[in-house]
Amino acid sequence: MTDNSAQIWRNARLAARADPADVLENAAIVVRDGRIEWFGAEADIPSAFAKSTSHDLEGRIVTPGLVDCHTHLVYAGNRAEEFAMRLEGASYEDIAKRGGGIVSTVRNTRAASEDELFAQSLRRLDALLAEGVTALEIKSGYGLDLVTERKMLRVARRLAAARPVTIATTFLGAHALPPEYAGRADDYIAHVCDEMLPTLAAKGLVDAVDVFCERIAFTLAQAERVFNAASKLNLPVKMHAEQLSLMGGAALAAKHHALSADHLEFLDEAGAIAMREAGTVAVLLPGAFYFIREKQLPPVELLRRHGVPIALATDSNPGTSPSTSLLLMLNMGCTLFRLSVAEVLAGVTRHGAKALGHADVSGQISVGAKADFVAWDIETLAELAYWTGLERCALVVRHGAVTVDKRTKQN
Amino acid sequence: MTDNSAQIWRNARLAARADPADVLENAAIVVRDGRIEWFGAEADIPSAFAKSTSHDLEGRIVTPGLVDCHTHLVYAGNRAEEFAMRLEGASYEDIAKRGGGIVSTVRNTRAASEDELFAQSLRRLDALLAEGVTALEIKSGYGLDLVTERKMLRVARRLAAARPVTIATTFLGAHALPPEYAGRADDYIAHVCDEMLPTLAAKGLVDAVDVFCERIAFTLAQAERVFNAASKLNLPVKMHAEQLSLMGGAALAAKHHALSADHLEFLDEAGAIAMREAGTVAVLLPGAFYFIREKQLPPVELLRRHGVPIALATDSNPGTSPSTSLLLMLNMGCTLFRLSVAEVLAGVTRHGAKALGHADVSGQISVGAKADFVAWDIETLAELAYWTGLERCALVVRHGAVTVDKRTKQN
Ligand SMILES: [Zn+2]
Ligand SMILES: [Zn+2]
Repeated sequence: MTDNSAQIWRNARLAARADPADVLENAAIVVRDGRIEWFGAEADIPSAFAKSTSHDLEGRIVTPGLVDCHTHLVYAGNRAEEFAMRLEGASYEDIAKRGGGIVSTVRNTRAASEDELFAQSLRRLDALLAEGVTALEIKSGYGLDLVTERKMLRVARRLAAARPVTIATTFLGAHALPPEYAGRADDYIAHVCDEMLPTLAAKGLVDAVDVFCERIAFTLAQAERVFNAASKLNLPVKMHAEQLSLMGGAALAAKHHALSADHLEFLDEAGAIAMREAGTVAVLLPGAFYFIREKQLPPVELLRRHGVPIALATDSNPGTSPSTSLLLMLNMGCTLFRLSVAEVLAGVTRHGAKALGHADVSGQISVGAKADFVAWDIETLAELAYWTGLERCALVVRHGAVTVDKRTKQN
Repeated sequence: MTDNSAQIWRNARLAARADPADVLENAAIVVRDGRIEWFGAEADIPSAFAKSTSHDLEGRIVTPGLVDCHTHLVYAGNRAEEFAMRLEGASYEDIAKRGGGIVSTVRNTRAASEDELFAQSLRRLDALLAEGVTALEIKSGYGLDLVTERKMLRVARRLAAARPVTIATTFLGAHALPPEYAGRADDYIAHVCDEMLPTLAAKGLVDAVDVFCERIAFTLAQAERVFNAASKLNLPVKMHAEQLSLMGGAALAAKHHALSADHLEFLDEAGAIAMREAGTVAVLLPGAFYFIREKQLPPVELLRRHGVPIALATDSNPGTSPSTSLLLMLNMGCTLFRLSVAEVLAGVTRHGAKALGHADVSGQISVGAKADFVAWDIETLAELAYWTGLERCALVVRHGAVTVDKRTKQN
């Protein structure tokens, strides 16, 4: 019996787990119903697929589709003028006086119509997709009121409908204290937990819940209230933790079986051990480290020693990481954090998928997983991390269908 | 009398000198014979051009075409595997033992056919052009023998013929000591000065001459011999100077009225003063600074204080700056070197042009200059330096003709 509904992608150099030590030459992937039905050496393709439509990958290296597991992609306006002012010597105070900082993004995002917000965010999404991203996370957190947080999450859902990409939404109401709650952080957290989160979750807009736990944001106790509210709704949690100081947030996140704890420059050993035991992914964000000129490196050796899975993401946001290049994060992960090529590739594939809560469906070429993969114009996997700026993505297949095709006919 | 051979580009927000403080709204550029005939407020377009063909820039910010004044774009192979090995803990010795380092690029470049070398380099050139570069420099220096240096420079000339771009070639025979001259640096310099340079210059392949003056490369005395040889042929000079230590190279370069002295992390005040007096441009290369994790910042305050013009370039090369993004260098110039937005923009336009020896024809919108300009999908000039990864280049015009057009129809 033959299977004509399947499609075969032949002639790949297949890095099924995006690992330079594990590349299968002359490989093929068989796709059916948007999932991977089989993969292996071309010579071993099961005869059942002999008559399936076949596509030639022309000897390209193939990896899983990339996963960007931490983004704030949806916002209005940008902070380029603030960036320029700071270079001219303006202090944070000067900028705050002129209405800058996160409150300016909150103001712009509140003021933008849903269509405007969608259009501005779509442009950033398209930049990620052009580099091979097939799944990503988008957080709310620039509304800080119910109506704007809802608008942001609706835009995230609309983006997923407008483009062939998987988007996991994260409610980050506890991102910063909105001006109207100045001096009343606990009241705001109550509003987040009792009103905003249940309302947005009831509308199906929330896939996970995040808190920014930091001296300049929310305390451990406030974070735990948000986690408890998420737990009541059976929603997974994650945390912006230990970015600027050691707060103990990572350990708290682990206690709540968080999908991930993110940033982690100041993580200590107890936190790393707790994360390992809870299966919480360490999401490192070299773009923010670079942009704010942080000096404290994340404790990579500690994470390695305790076997904590490391993911890498853009943190795409207007204030501390105005980047739409996940490939640049691979380079920065190696150059700034001294991660290995294997580590950064795992970080934007299977570990990124785990941080997204999609461990079994994304970020890897495995039987039963979604057929999300990228064919690259490179000779070695290391080239994904080595270059900055060079176009490398030749072809993207997502759920079995071609979504990006930049292959050029060579004469 | 009307002029029908001219073309008008209307509806620009014109940053004629790429200066955020100097943007002319509702502006137009009149182009004739590939040069700028007139520019100014649309309302003031001379009546002689009333019937000229007109193009709508749709309110976009327009800057001069970008200039990348320091690249080693032509080479074969890459050093991604070496990059990966170093992250796995390999020492420079280990890598040298395995045939890595600059000698591997020399080996690959010698072995490559001219067509192979052209094809590999064209891909990097295309990445630069897609970001708005209209003029660049390409150095030789991975041949270190006459036949390969000639091949590299011929490829640079072929690239200029294959694409609508201005390419200035630089002979960098004195880049490193080739293995066959081990222990005989003075003999190699004699070969460079007496054989290679005159032969290549006679073939019209050399627009300028460069030397790498450094403890790991060539001495001041050797550099001066190269400069004297260039002088006999009336060729301008430049120098890789004070990158890893203070050698006094910048002062020597200034003494020889060099177009530029490049890198300059260890430049001293005497060198800066000499450069200022000679009109020598300081070319800063943040991509190399970043990639090799240099700690010593170039003396930006010193350059400012003495009014030395600062240019910025990719240094695109396989060993220390595997980058093909000049826009990323704008971001790194601001983020790492704390240059202002105005400084980095001048650095890749008029100061870059000056470093190229093209001060009056490139890098600015001025009457009589080549009609090289870029229309950007941005709201403020600061966005050119602020974002990483975002597509911003909408349209490139070079010598009056459209060479890149990524404008999309918005619905
Ligand atoms: Zn974040
Ligand atoms: Zn160089």
